[in-house]
Amino acid sequence: MVSIMKISELSLETGASLATIKYYLREGLLPAGERSAPNQATYSKAHVRRIHMIRALTDVGGLAVSDAKRVIDAIESDLPLTRAFEIAQRTVSEQVDPESLDDDAISTIDSAIAGWACEPTDPGRLAAARVVMNFRKAGQGTDSGWLASYAEAAQLVAKADLDLVETRPDLASRAETVVVGTVLGDALFAALRRSAQAAESVRRYGDPER
Amino acid sequence: MVSIMKISELSLETGASLATIKYYLREGLLPAGERSAPNQATYSKAHVRRIHMIRALTDVGGLAVSDAKRVIDAIESDLPLTRAFEIAQRTVSEQVDPESLDDDAISTIDSAIAGWACEPTDPGRLAAARVVMNFRKAGQGTDSGWLASYAEAAQLVAKADLDLVETRPDLASRAETVVVGTVLGDALFAALRRSAQAAESVRRYGDPER
Repeated sequence: MVSIMKISELSLETGASLATIKYYLREGLLPAGERSAPNQATYSKAHVRRIHMIRALTDVGGLAVSDAKRVIDAIESDLPLTRAFEIAQRTVSEQVDPESLDDDAISTIDSAIAGWACEPTDPGRLAAARVVMNFRKAGQGTDSGWLASYAEAAQLVAKADLDLVETRPDLASRAETVVVGTVLGDALFAALRRSAQAAESVRRYGDPER
Repeated sequence: MVSIMKISELSLETGASLATIKYYLREGLLPAGERSAPNQATYSKAHVRRIHMIRALTDVGGLAVSDAKRVIDAIESDLPLTRAFEIAQRTVSEQVDPESLDDDAISTIDSAIAGWACEPTDPGRLAAARVVMNFRKAGQGTDSGWLASYAEAAQLVAKADLDLVETRPDLASRAETVVVGTVLGDALFAALRRSAQAAESVRRYGDPER
């Protein structure tokens, strides 16, 4: 990869069409290139990374371009990390109205996450309570041991996420890792959970193909 | 909840409109009610559960109705559990073309899940490799300790999932738990991961509000 490129090369390098790149520039998701002639600008590796980040947010994370912009603005505003996490999470996650939840589902989740430093309005807590509610509506009991394993696994992953963020050299790249990790981490865990279920089910019940 | 109901009561009980219920009946997602008069049928608690399951698959899992039907057909066909898991997973997960992956990303995932009884075509393995690829494209290095924590957490959750399935009394309700759990488990983990990140980040960096 060359480190200074024209817009056509940026398009080739990232697989994003010229129209898409121009749209990102217009909407302020991508910083302007360096003007090299009256009608020409050059772009850098930072632009390549940013385009891949926008793609991760919109294609993998399912964000609208306006929401991706909100997250990217948060990255660029030198916020403390706790706030950057919060904005990334609130944008990526569907907001759950606390009024739509029954008390039983909330207290089930509160027992599973007892001792965590969570605000009552924590969006993860409310979203988790809604899942419990939907689970029960579908006729499925939730078991406290099952929920405890999910909570333990979530803590393990959250610690690893924060450790990864701390390996980054500066605030801007830490914030980038927060945002990309928030979106792609969900997809990574869901994928590994499927492989682990397949492996565990072969271990317990044997391989149906053999 | 009454245990035998007319279609209008089924609608009230589930919040699904009459048109939706008739559509599910027509498409074979919902078994026909018991004929009680030439132009009337009655429905049972099993119908209520089934409607909530269809809703979980389509609203939370984002499945098309035709895909939800495929999963429900699998439940009703007395398959071994390993196969029921496989069908639920293949339907819920986006298929990743192995040709679209680079060898580096695949070998990174293979190291993380070394020793798991996974087929090379395992959809979770391929989906995880794609996430690693997207992560790197977005300029983010993946760290082997980070991936190892995800793999360990996925094993913990998969064991809990299988344990939950084994508490169910018969094959039909086990298959139901597989399907509902495959879809809602992703949402539950993602929600708890957010809460755990918030809690861990307050623990490490303090609360920005205070």
